[in-house]
Amino acid sequence: MKKNIMNFENVALNEQEDALIILDQTKLPCEIKMLHLKDLKDIWQAIYKLQVRGAPAIGIAAGFGLYLAAKNIDTNDYESFFSKFHEAKEFLNSSRPTAVNLSWALNRMEKIVINNHNKNISEIKELLREECIAIKTEDIFTCKKIGEYGLTLIKNGDGILTHCNAGQLATSKYGTALAPIHLGRERGMNFRVYCDETRPLLQGARLSTFELIADGVDTTLICDNMASQVMKNGWINAVFVGADRIAANGDSCNKIGTSGLAILAKYYGIPFYVLAPTSTIDMNISKGSDIIIEQRPSEEITEMWYEKRMAPNDVKVYNPAFDVADNELITGIITEYGIARQPFSKSLEEIFKSAKNNKRG
Amino acid sequence: MKKNIMNFENVALNEQEDALIILDQTKLPCEIKMLHLKDLKDIWQAIYKLQVRGAPAIGIAAGFGLYLAAKNIDTNDYESFFSKFHEAKEFLNSSRPTAVNLSWALNRMEKIVINNHNKNISEIKELLREECIAIKTEDIFTCKKIGEYGLTLIKNGDGILTHCNAGQLATSKYGTALAPIHLGRERGMNFRVYCDETRPLLQGARLSTFELIADGVDTTLICDNMASQVMKNGWINAVFVGADRIAANGDSCNKIGTSGLAILAKYYGIPFYVLAPTSTIDMNISKGSDIIIEQRPSEEITEMWYEKRMAPNDVKVYNPAFDVADNELITGIITEYGIARQPFSKSLEEIFKSAKNNKRG
Repeated sequence: MKKNIMNFENVALNEQEDALIILDQTKLPCEIKMLHLKDLKDIWQAIYKLQVRGAPAIGIAAGFGLYLAAKNIDTNDYESFFSKFHEAKEFLNSSRPTAVNLSWALNRMEKIVINNHNKNISEIKELLREECIAIKTEDIFTCKKIGEYGLTLIKNGDGILTHCNAGQLATSKYGTALAPIHLGRERGMNFRVYCDETRPLLQGARLSTFELIADGVDTTLICDNMASQVMKNGWINAVFVGADRIAANGDSCNKIGTSGLAILAKYYGIPFYVLAPTSTIDMNISKGSDIIIEQRPSEEITEMWYEKRMAPNDVKVYNPAFDVADNELITGIITEYGIARQPFSKSLEEIFKSAKNNKRG
Repeated sequence: MKKNIMNFENVALNEQEDALIILDQTKLPCEIKMLHLKDLKDIWQAIYKLQVRGAPAIGIAAGFGLYLAAKNIDTNDYESFFSKFHEAKEFLNSSRPTAVNLSWALNRMEKIVINNHNKNISEIKELLREECIAIKTEDIFTCKKIGEYGLTLIKNGDGILTHCNAGQLATSKYGTALAPIHLGRERGMNFRVYCDETRPLLQGARLSTFELIADGVDTTLICDNMASQVMKNGWINAVFVGADRIAANGDSCNKIGTSGLAILAKYYGIPFYVLAPTSTIDMNISKGSDIIIEQRPSEEITEMWYEKRMAPNDVKVYNPAFDVADNELITGIITEYGIARQPFSKSLEEIFKSAKNNKRG
């Protein structure tokens, strides 16, 4: 259990095997099992079944997956290649509707194909290889920067409440919401982290506690409905959550339960921060209510993890995977280009300007 | 599964067997198993393990249990009888610290012994028998009255959110929070009830859905962290919860998660009602922060219900069984003597005056 996961990769491309290697997160914390996926359908399944999860990690996995699919397209004709490539891209894109990083990474890969239509197919394949590796390298850099900015908001020994897993397991290193914690650990700091277990899939209980304990963090597990009491006890200095999609006005879509936490934090006067890469910000979506919320199977609530059904057979179930924290509830959005504060319509635009300048520079 | 639980008793005294009969609620909804308990230690265990749960049901079970213990005390000497009776009472009282109905029912039984010290032991035993039966009969009447008052606050087809189980299964009939729903059903009404699953012990998923479906109610199960989204969707007209102990200022202690729900309801402008008998109101406790909150074993969160551990072995766990909704968050407290509204210090005193007058009358 204490195996230091900070030293191994959750999502990797194995070029000898032509396989996507992922740590099967549905098996944690009881079993550390690496999946070697070569087939596009298996990669789709792995994303759909949350064997790989977390918006940035999904993007990285999809990038690798699409590269592997492209590599297997046996043609020298561009039109034929593009048609098959696009089909594979759309298929992967259908695995989860809410995470913007999925389509962001896939579009980034497709742009390579489109922008290099005059090159031959083997050259395009090599460029795709470089691109998917770049997506991962940039993710590590991005997470570290988020950690740097996040660390300016807390001090050694602070109590942090987090929800779901926006940690290293959701990215390639450091994580987003947990980046300040892990980066702080590298610098000899420690924090008291409270993890919501995060029903129904228990990413907090299974994943966040796992990676935090592996990193030597003082970690306490609570049920989602205990967050109010923990805040009331005065144990929490800040709430750190990730995001799956952020609208242009700052409304932040994240794991179901996030909006409730944001309301509780406001009531108790605790700062509520969303930590996410700019790739999570969708400037084409003006407000949170325009974000499509994925509905998941009722069995996740009534059966999954259990030996027997824990609710009557005929009960109706509502199982949204995400909700949206309204911008008015958010103290700051921490990105790799700095911290956006209210009003977010303005500050997020500034962040995007920095991002563009930085990419030019 | 569809067996109509409205027609059988959760907590009963079987005088032929000299046994307390309870429906084992830890087995629901998969199995309907009745326990026949004769031994005081088994009755203590049944309360501790939540095989019988819900403040009023615990009070009824404890009353029956103490009567059975008294019946077995083989002496004609009052002092000796009282000493053994008192010991049994204190033992039962130690099974759960938070529910006021437990000590309320046990004190009520002890008062019979004290007030009749001049009678002989067999007469005292008969008076104890009448008293414990009265506790149950009064509970049915009380719940029905709570249902009557509650029904004045909602209309046919309304959406009600509830937490944990303050239903028939927590009392002897109708329930408290669910009394308006069940009484409404008797009168041909129906409601859309949303049940928080209520981690860690899932009383909402296992018990409330079970008894509501059995009564033909339109029932939807959600995880605790989905309450905010359900409220945001506009589906909820009122929140109905029970209480384990209410302070003189209206602060209401109930299943963990209740304070969070109350904060969410306030944020969304949804009325938040506590439905509980006056026996739950503890006028000796001035405010919620004086209520002792029971801490329960960490395994309830990390292991219970699961095939294997769902969190790392070495994780710390915080598992409070209850929290307190501050009076400022509560729209009304619905008792068998009417609806108390803010300021509760005043309105609860009025309620107690009605209660006293009624008992005199």
